[in-house]
Amino acid sequence: MLEELKRAVRDANKDLVKLELVHSSTTFGNVSAIDETRRFVAIKPSGLRYEEMNDNDIVIIDIEGNIVEGTKRPSSDTNTHLELYKSFPHIKAVVHTHSLYATTFAQAKTPITCLGTTHADYFDGEIPVMRDLTTKEIEIDYELNTGKAIVDTFKTLNIDYRVIQACLLPSHGPFSWGESLNKAVENSLILEQMAKMNYRTLRLNPIVQPLRADLLKKHYLRKHGPTAYYGQKDYDKSNTNGR
Amino acid sequence: MLEELKRAVRDANKDLVKLELVHSSTTFGNVSAIDETRRFVAIKPSGLRYEEMNDNDIVIIDIEGNIVEGTKRPSSDTNTHLELYKSFPHIKAVVHTHSLYATTFAQAKTPITCLGTTHADYFDGEIPVMRDLTTKEIEIDYELNTGKAIVDTFKTLNIDYRVIQACLLPSHGPFSWGESLNKAVENSLILEQMAKMNYRTLRLNPIVQPLRADLLKKHYLRKHGPTAYYGQKDYDKSNTNGR
Amino acid sequence: MLEELKRAVRDANKDLVKLELVHSSTTFGNVSAIDETRRFVAIKPSGLRYEEMNDNDIVIIDIEGNIVEGTKRPSSDTNTHLELYKSFPHIKAVVHTHSLYATTFAQAKTPITCLGTTHADYFDGEIPVMRDLTTKEIEIDYELNTGKAIVDTFKTLNIDYRVIQACLLPSHGPFSWGESLNKAVENSLILEQMAKMNYRTLRLNPIVQPLRADLLKKHYLRKHGPTAYYGQKDYDKSNTNGR
Amino acid sequence: MLEELKRAVRDANKDLVKLELVHSSTTFGNVSAIDETRRFVAIKPSGLRYEEMNDNDIVIIDIEGNIVEGTKRPSSDTNTHLELYKSFPHIKAVVHTHSLYATTFAQAKTPITCLGTTHADYFDGEIPVMRDLTTKEIEIDYELNTGKAIVDTFKTLNIDYRVIQACLLPSHGPFSWGESLNKAVENSLILEQMAKMNYRTLRLNPIVQPLRADLLKKHYLRKHGPTAYYGQKDYDKSNTNGR
Repeated sequence: MLEELKRAVRDANKDLVKLELVHSSTTFGNVSAIDETRRFVAIKPSGLRYEEMNDNDIVIIDIEGNIVEGTKRPSSDTNTHLELYKSFPHIKAVVHTHSLYATTFAQAKTPITCLGTTHADYFDGEIPVMRDLTTKEIEIDYELNTGKAIVDTFKTLNIDYRVIQACLLPSHGPFSWGESLNKAVENSLILEQMAKMNYRTLRLNPIVQPLRADLLKKHYLRKHGPTAYYGQKDYDKSNTNGR
Repeated sequence: MLEELKRAVRDANKDLVKLELVHSSTTFGNVSAIDETRRFVAIKPSGLRYEEMNDNDIVIIDIEGNIVEGTKRPSSDTNTHLELYKSFPHIKAVVHTHSLYATTFAQAKTPITCLGTTHADYFDGEIPVMRDLTTKEIEIDYELNTGKAIVDTFKTLNIDYRVIQACLLPSHGPFSWGESLNKAVENSLILEQMAKMNYRTLRLNPIVQPLRADLLKKHYLRKHGPTAYYGQKDYDKSNTNGR
Repeated sequence: MLEELKRAVRDANKDLVKLELVHSSTTFGNVSAIDETRRFVAIKPSGLRYEEMNDNDIVIIDIEGNIVEGTKRPSSDTNTHLELYKSFPHIKAVVHTHSLYATTFAQAKTPITCLGTTHADYFDGEIPVMRDLTTKEIEIDYELNTGKAIVDTFKTLNIDYRVIQACLLPSHGPFSWGESLNKAVENSLILEQMAKMNYRTLRLNPIVQPLRADLLKKHYLRKHGPTAYYGQKDYDKSNTNGR
Repeated sequence: MLEELKRAVRDANKDLVKLELVHSSTTFGNVSAIDETRRFVAIKPSGLRYEEMNDNDIVIIDIEGNIVEGTKRPSSDTNTHLELYKSFPHIKAVVHTHSLYATTFAQAKTPITCLGTTHADYFDGEIPVMRDLTTKEIEIDYELNTGKAIVDTFKTLNIDYRVIQACLLPSHGPFSWGESLNKAVENSLILEQMAKMNYRTLRLNPIVQPLRADLLKKHYLRKHGPTAYYGQKDYDKSNTNGR
C-alpha cells in the first residue's frame, strides 16, 4: 500500500512540471500524501529534479517526521506538510509550488480576492495571506512554524480549510491541499489560473469589487455539497429533463 | 444526421483546448450546435474532460431541453444556449469559454472596445457586457435568466447579434455564437486575441480612442457583405487586375 | 525563376506562423517578394490559411498590379506592397503581420522608441507611426494610399528606409521590409521582440529615456556597414587576435 | 581536455535556446568557460545560429584573447568575458543573454530587488545595474570596458561576486557567472524567472518592500554554506529524523 502511495506521490510531483506550476529545470515545489491510517506520509526528496525521480526516491516518514523508508533526505519543507496533516484532519495531500502568479500575489502580500465565477467554482471566497513569522519563528524550526502560522491564520480569520483549500505565504509562495492527491494538485493549478486572471483584472479595473455574494454561493454550490448539479455524479439517467 | 452533428460538436469542444481557450486539465467551456430543423441541439456533457470525450458522450436535447439521446447530464449552461437559439434565429452554434483575456474583461466589467482593424475585420463594434442579474434571477433558473439577459442587453443597447457575435457576462466570461460551428469557435478565438491586444493597448495608452468610424466600416465591409473583396469567394479568375 | 520566387514566398508566409507572428488559425499577415528585374511580384493569396497554401496558390503580378500567373485573388493589401517596391528601390521583400506587441503599439499610436542595444543591433532608431489617412484616402484606393502614407511619413520625418526597415500603421499593425526575403521576415520578428521588451520597460520605468546616441551608434555599426565586426563576414582566419 | 570544454560550451550555448533565454531565430547570447589552468577560454563564435553550431565552431582563445584554436571569429563580447575571468578568480563560466524580463530591468535601469524566498534561494540580495560607461569607454575597447565596469560596480557597491552571481548592463541585458558551466547557466535561468516574478509583483504592489533580512538569510543559508540542509549533499542516510 505504501508502494502505491509512493508511486502516486512521484507522479503528482512530476505533474507539477507538466502543468507548468514548476519549471522543469528547477526544484521549486513538492507534493506529499498521507496514507489511510494517517500514520505515514510519502514526500518528495529534497532538491531532486522531477525528471530523474523514481518511486524509490520518495521518502516515507511517520507523522512525527521519523524516516520509515528511503535513503534520500526528505523535502526541506517536510515539517510544514506534517503540521497541516495534524491540524487539518480531512486532508489527504499537500502541494507547495512557486508558480508564477500565485507567488506574485504572495510576494506582493496581497490576498487573491474572488473576482469571478471561475474562482467561485473552486474556492468559497478569498485566498488569504499567512501572518508574518517572528524572527524567532524563522530562526528555529522555521518550517514547523510555517505550518503552525498557516493554521493560526485560518483560525484567526475564521476560514474553514475545507472550502478554502489554499494559502499564500508572504514573500514566499502558495500551499494548497485537498481530500485527495488529485484534488490538491488541481487546487494548485486553479489557484495559479485564478491568480493570473485576477492580476490582469486588477490592471484593467483597479477598483473592481469582489464577486457579489449571491453569485459566489450559486457557483460554489452548483459544484459542491448536496445541491450540486454540475458534473455526472448522482445523475439519474432516466431523467428526461436534462438539468 | 444527428450523428454527424454530435461528431462535429465533440470536435469543436476539443478544439477549445487546442486553441488554448480552455486549459486541458479543466472543464471551463462548452460548445453546442443546433440542427437544420432547429428542433435538436447537441451539447457537451457536464464536467467531462475534453480528451476523454467521445461522440456518444454528446447529449442531444430538444429545443425545450428534454433529453432525446445520451446517458450523460448535459452542460449546466444548457439553458443559456437554448435561450440564445430561440432568440437569435440566424445562429447555428454557441460557444462558452473562460479564456484568459476575455474573462479578464468580463471580471473587470469592461466592454472590449474596437481599438484596431483586427477587431473591425470580425466584429462591427464594441463587445458589450451583459446587464447584471437580479438576486432572484440568480437563485431560480440562473442559466435560463443568463440567456434572457444577454438577449435583453443586445436589445437595450440596440446591437445586432449578427454583426456583434459575442457578449461578456459580468464576473463570469464570454459567450460567442455564429452562423456555423466553425464561425462560432472562430469568434471565440478572435475575441480572446482582441481582448489580449486591447488589454495591452490600454496599458500603453490609457486614453486611446475607439477606432475611427470610417476605418471600422472599411475593414468590416472589406470582409463582410456584398462589397467584400477579402478572401477567394466570388473571385472571377479571368480578372487580370488582381484587386 | 518565378517558380523559385513563388516557393520562397510560400515558405516565408508559412514562417510567419512558425515564428508566432501570425496565429495558425487566422490569416492576419502576408509576405511578398519582387524578382531581380523588379518587374514581377509574388504575393500571398487573400484569406488563405497558411498550412493549406501551395506554391501554386502564390499569385504573380506585375509591378502595376496586373495578374501574370495564378488563379487566386492576391492579398487585399497588394497595393500597399507595390507602392513600397516602387518608392523604396533597395527592398526585395515586404512583410505585414498583426503580431501581438507591434500591433499593440500601432493601436496605441505610439512609436517603438529605441530603449536598448537589442533594438540598436537591428534598427538605427525609433520605429515611427504612419500619419493618419484622410477619410477620402480610406474610402477610395485605401491600400494604395496606405503605401503612399508610409512613404510620406518616412520623407516627412526624414527617416532612411534602409536603416529603419519597419513602420507602424495607426490602429492597424506593422509593415516591415528588407533587402532580402529573410531579412524582411527577420525584421518582422525583431520588431515584435523589441515591442515586447519596450512594452514591459515602459511599465517598469514610465519615464525611461531613449538609448543614448553613442551606444546606439556603437551597436548599430558593430553589425552594419564597413566597420562591422559582428558575425563571420570578411573574417580573416589567419588573424590571431580574435576581435 | 579542451575538446571536452568545447563540447560543454557548445551544449551550454544550445541550452540557452532550450531554456527560452534566447530566441532560436536570433543570436542574442553567448556562453564561455575557462579551463582548469585558467589559461584557455572556450567561447561561442560571433553571430552563429545555435542549431547549426558544432563543437568545432567553438573558438579557443588564451586569457589575453589570442586565438589558439578554431577558424571562426569569437563572440564580439569576448573581451567582457575575459575581463570577468581575470577579476573574478572563482568563476569557471560566463553567460550573456538578452532574456526578456532581465533585459527589461536592464533597459529600465532598475536593479532586481530581492522580493521573495525564491530569489533568496539563489542570490544573497539585489542584482545591481552596472554603472554607465563614458563616451570614451564606448568608443574605444567597448567590450573590455564593459567587463571593467561590471567589476568596478561590484567593488563600489561592496558586493561579493560569489554570492551575487549576476549583473544588469544598463540599456543592454544581463551577464551571469558561476563556479561551473551548469551553475552559470542556472543563474541565467533563475535571474530571468526572478525578473518575471518581480516585474509582476511591482505591478500588483508598487510600494512592496525588499524581503526582510532574517528570511533572506534563512533561505540563502538553507541552500548555501556549511549549515545548508537543502538537497542531498552530505546527507547521512542512517539519520532517522529526516530534516
